[in-house]
Amino acid sequence: MGFIVNPCKGFYAKMRQYVRWHWEKICRYPPIRSRLYGMEYKLYKFWVVIYGEPDATDVVIFNELPTRSPGYHTSNGCKKKYCETCRVNRIVMYLDNAKYSIDIAHFTISHRLIYHAIVRAWDRGVELRIVTDSQMIYMRGSVVVTLCRMGIPVHAASDRLTLHHKFCIIDGRKRILDLDEQEKRIHCRLWNCKGFIMTGSLNWTHQGTANNYENVVMTSNFNVTDQYQELYEKLWRQNPPLQTLDYLGFVDESIFGCRF
Amino acid sequence: MGFIVNPCKGFYAKMRQYVRWHWEKICRYPPIRSRLYGMEYKLYKFWVVIYGEPDATDVVIFNELPTRSPGYHTSNGCKKKYCETCRVNRIVMYLDNAKYSIDIAHFTISHRLIYHAIVRAWDRGVELRIVTDSQMIYMRGSVVVTLCRMGIPVHAASDRLTLHHKFCIIDGRKRILDLDEQEKRIHCRLWNCKGFIMTGSLNWTHQGTANNYENVVMTSNFNVTDQYQELYEKLWRQNPPLQTLDYLGFVDESIFGCRF
Repeated sequence: MGFIVNPCKGFYAKMRQYVRWHWEKICRYPPIRSRLYGMEYKLYKFWVVIYGEPDATDVVIFNELPTRSPGYHTSNGCKKKYCETCRVNRIVMYLDNAKYSIDIAHFTISHRLIYHAIVRAWDRGVELRIVTDSQMIYMRGSVVVTLCRMGIPVHAASDRLTLHHKFCIIDGRKRILDLDEQEKRIHCRLWNCKGFIMTGSLNWTHQGTANNYENVVMTSNFNVTDQYQELYEKLWRQNPPLQTLDYLGFVDESIFGCRF
Repeated sequence: MGFIVNPCKGFYAKMRQYVRWHWEKICRYPPIRSRLYGMEYKLYKFWVVIYGEPDATDVVIFNELPTRSPGYHTSNGCKKKYCETCRVNRIVMYLDNAKYSIDIAHFTISHRLIYHAIVRAWDRGVELRIVTDSQMIYMRGSVVVTLCRMGIPVHAASDRLTLHHKFCIIDGRKRILDLDEQEKRIHCRLWNCKGFIMTGSLNWTHQGTANNYENVVMTSNFNVTDQYQELYEKLWRQNPPLQTLDYLGFVDESIFGCRF
């Protein structure tokens, strides 16, 4: 077979050499090379100017498998497959990355890691607002009253309807503009952040993350975030603020010491 | 004031005439005019070729107000503000517009209008699949068993975990490719449809639409839809099909006659 294979090999090597030589000739001139490589990026920037940035999206799924996967969570480079804590940490990451505002509208909040993330955000100076259901704040393990006593503004929905929302808005565009207006700033804070919402079936409870099949979706689509922000403003206006002193009997902060 | 105003008026009329004349001169040549008008569209088509179509999104909100708004729903041009039935109809519209497949993963289904939409889709020949919680199919008003007895494939999640998902995938890209493969077709069905998912806090129940604050978000973002489709395939594989004969004691189709 040598009389067929060898010429073919030779031809292939020649072709390769030829293409390579031409490519090097093109690349010898930096402007041409940089133009070739930069074209796509310039086109993209041009597109972004006209139509805006494409949406950032993310999906977090809890309990894909009906059985618990073996192993334990480790804080550095966790190797557990389908790890629950890693997935909670992804939600916590989004809360930790909030720069200016978090608007939370949740049926109930009792997850320890998320509680700590909210507290961290509050300590960082993020503008927090919480709207929650008026019945669920009495539930065992609910951290809403504790958060309220820390000074975070909490509104509780009326008794007639159940607040079944499970969403939060992080760095919402309209909210940042409102904050800028209140503080008489120029609208400079919009430039370096991207607002998004986080919605889905997950209640921020240990039951939800450990024992339910759940899904959470994040999107930064302006159409969606603006509508959710509008909804949030309505919820905030309609529902009265929670008076913590009324519930002092139910509050015992030491539960965090003994339960977790 | 006439000696100031009149010359100004004259000047303005002259300017307008001049601009108009030039515009007409430009517009006399159809190619130039059509190029001017067609530029934006061509740029858009070019963008779509490179980066794909922008995402279609929609948000449906139930019960923005804590009080019921006055008036009744009318089927033609409903004038009721914040009408509940109109909002359910928007979800029904999405189900009615499904061409090839609907994959439903819901905690519980008992809403009459949505039941009829699912039945219509099944009659139309849409490939339906339902995954639901094994406990909630016993609930009063649940239509899952009725749907199962019609021949729709239903899988029920295991008892250990609660299936708390509230999403459905309509015309999912991967699902259509799978169906094409099963039927040995060429992938022609992808061209004329756009898959999207519908998720949020809404259970498809009358309680949810009438008495809870709820939100539903639709998005056609490929990143999101593909991840949800993958999740759905996992759920479908892991959970056993529902055996209707086991539940015959609980089934009475005449409830639809008397309750609604």
